[in-house]
Amino acid sequence: MKENVAKKQEVAFDDQSGNSMNYSQVMQEITAMKSQLEAVSKSTASNKLSMIVFSGDLDKVLASFIIATGAKAMDMDVVMFFTFWGTPVLRDKGKKAGGKDFMGKMFGSMLPKGSCEVKLSKMNMAGMGTKMMKSLMKKKNVATLEQLIEMAGELGVRIYVCEMSMDLMGFKREEMIPYPDLTYCGVAKFLDEAMDSKIQLFI
Amino acid sequence: MKENVAKKQEVAFDDQSGNSMNYSQVMQEITAMKSQLEAVSKSTASNKLSMIVFSGDLDKVLASFIIATGAKAMDMDVVMFFTFWGTPVLRDKGKKAGGKDFMGKMFGSMLPKGSCEVKLSKMNMAGMGTKMMKSLMKKKNVATLEQLIEMAGELGVRIYVCEMSMDLMGFKREEMIPYPDLTYCGVAKFLDEAMDSKIQLFI
Amino acid sequence: MKENVAKKQEVAFDDQSGNSMNYSQVMQEITAMKSQLEAVSKSTASNKLSMIVFSGDLDKVLASFIIATGAKAMDMDVVMFFTFWGTPVLRDKGKKAGGKDFMGKMFGSMLPKGSCEVKLSKMNMAGMGTKMMKSLMKKKNVATLEQLIEMAGELGVRIYVCEMSMDLMGFKREEMIPYPDLTYCGVAKFLDEAMDSKIQLFI
Repeated sequence: MKENVAKKQEVAFDDQSGNSMNYSQVMQEITAMKSQLEAVSKSTASNKLSMIVFSGDLDKVLASFIIATGAKAMDMDVVMFFTFWGTPVLRDKGKKAGGKDFMGKMFGSMLPKGSCEVKLSKMNMAGMGTKMMKSLMKKKNVATLEQLIEMAGELGVRIYVCEMSMDLMGFKREEMIPYPDLTYCGVAKFLDEAMDSKIQLFI
Repeated sequence: MKENVAKKQEVAFDDQSGNSMNYSQVMQEITAMKSQLEAVSKSTASNKLSMIVFSGDLDKVLASFIIATGAKAMDMDVVMFFTFWGTPVLRDKGKKAGGKDFMGKMFGSMLPKGSCEVKLSKMNMAGMGTKMMKSLMKKKNVATLEQLIEMAGELGVRIYVCEMSMDLMGFKREEMIPYPDLTYCGVAKFLDEAMDSKIQLFI
Repeated sequence: MKENVAKKQEVAFDDQSGNSMNYSQVMQEITAMKSQLEAVSKSTASNKLSMIVFSGDLDKVLASFIIATGAKAMDMDVVMFFTFWGTPVLRDKGKKAGGKDFMGKMFGSMLPKGSCEVKLSKMNMAGMGTKMMKSLMKKKNVATLEQLIEMAGELGVRIYVCEMSMDLMGFKREEMIPYPDLTYCGVAKFLDEAMDSKIQLFI
């Protein structure tokens, strides 16, 4: 009996000392996990969609705005980064900008002036295919590009315009469409947004 | 000496009370971490690849199926969303659909009828480049588009077809290829899949 | 008083037994969370950008290198996978490769030889548009494609070249540009990198 009691006491003692030793271990484990969890949490993407709209073809720009407004309807944060041929889509056909050099004037007249002048990537056939597609879209009750841009603005789709493209093509800020949330920026800003997005597309 | 003993007892007491206080803290920390971990876990992407096949060019469609079957071979879940020019690639050249209106008939005859009629995006040269590429692929033992589509079906690549594109181009469901896992849907379905995918591509 | 003491002892006992029971629970919870955290951690993407450069158009290749060098400047790991029309961009115009068959020679002469011969996707206008764009870029102090490739090499952008494309187009390794970190591989390698990347783009 004495042995038993002695053993029990030893166990109890071990248990206690074990507990107190393990207690600080537990706290260490928890602290380590906390910082790990924070790091993992930071590296997971937000409920955001980032798109580079590089193309200026009517079909692709339409697709990008259908995706953008669709994502907004699903409560995603949506960012569109317009660059290169995508940039002239956002020009306002009713506006004029002075003070352009020769190249700027040339690009300005050769590139489409806003969403109405944008053409299909295939089967444009000197404008006939594009006209056909537009009349077809009207008949089928598909929103036009102008309507989609307006809807995107109302829904809060954020638009970035590539400053380098503006500069290269000689576009001035005063000739762009009025859009609720339009910012001029560089590639770093896009990468910053995309890095943190669940979906990224190059269109 | 008395002071020492008193201090020791105080410390011991503090320790104990500290322990019991910290114990409930530990449980709180663990509960907090658990829900945080669950949230993070939900926001991480599945081992899935989502592709929008917007293009109908032979080279790009080939690339999309090479990527799709390659990803399947790596045990990824693969989803392809065919829209716009990508849609006619999935037409069955042996099938006919009646009841089309004028526009539907026109689009139907102008757009490629299935994977055999699909052309290169560059150097098509009135079909010669496409023929050359096809004979070259045969010589180099690269699978044809038809073989790749069949393989994708066998491997379980899931295909979605954009309903709006079907409607716009006047395609009927009965003129599409038989494919094991083909569903008609809208952009929301694609976003739903893409949101949860490790890789998303717009092709 | 006796009752009180007895109660106190009971509580103390309960507390202890509760503690020791909960202690092993705590350890179980921690172990479970640890492995869950590890799994989540593994499934989160690295600070990496993966791009498929499928296009061989000057504007798109320029965009891909502007994005690549921009991402490197932001301390991201960057991987570019050159396939199909993107492959000839990396040919060295000063090098020749012998032992080509008829098809290889034909493709070799028809496709651009390196970054200098690459053309715009739009408004090339028999080379005039491309020349205009290049002179414009010079005037606006935008880096040329050759400078961007060199910069990418210095910054440590990793380049993969698709072996199937090399084979299809009959290109030999000895006719490619010298680049610090260039590897030949298949689609599986790309997927492997992309799966683990925060941003993936198909250009």
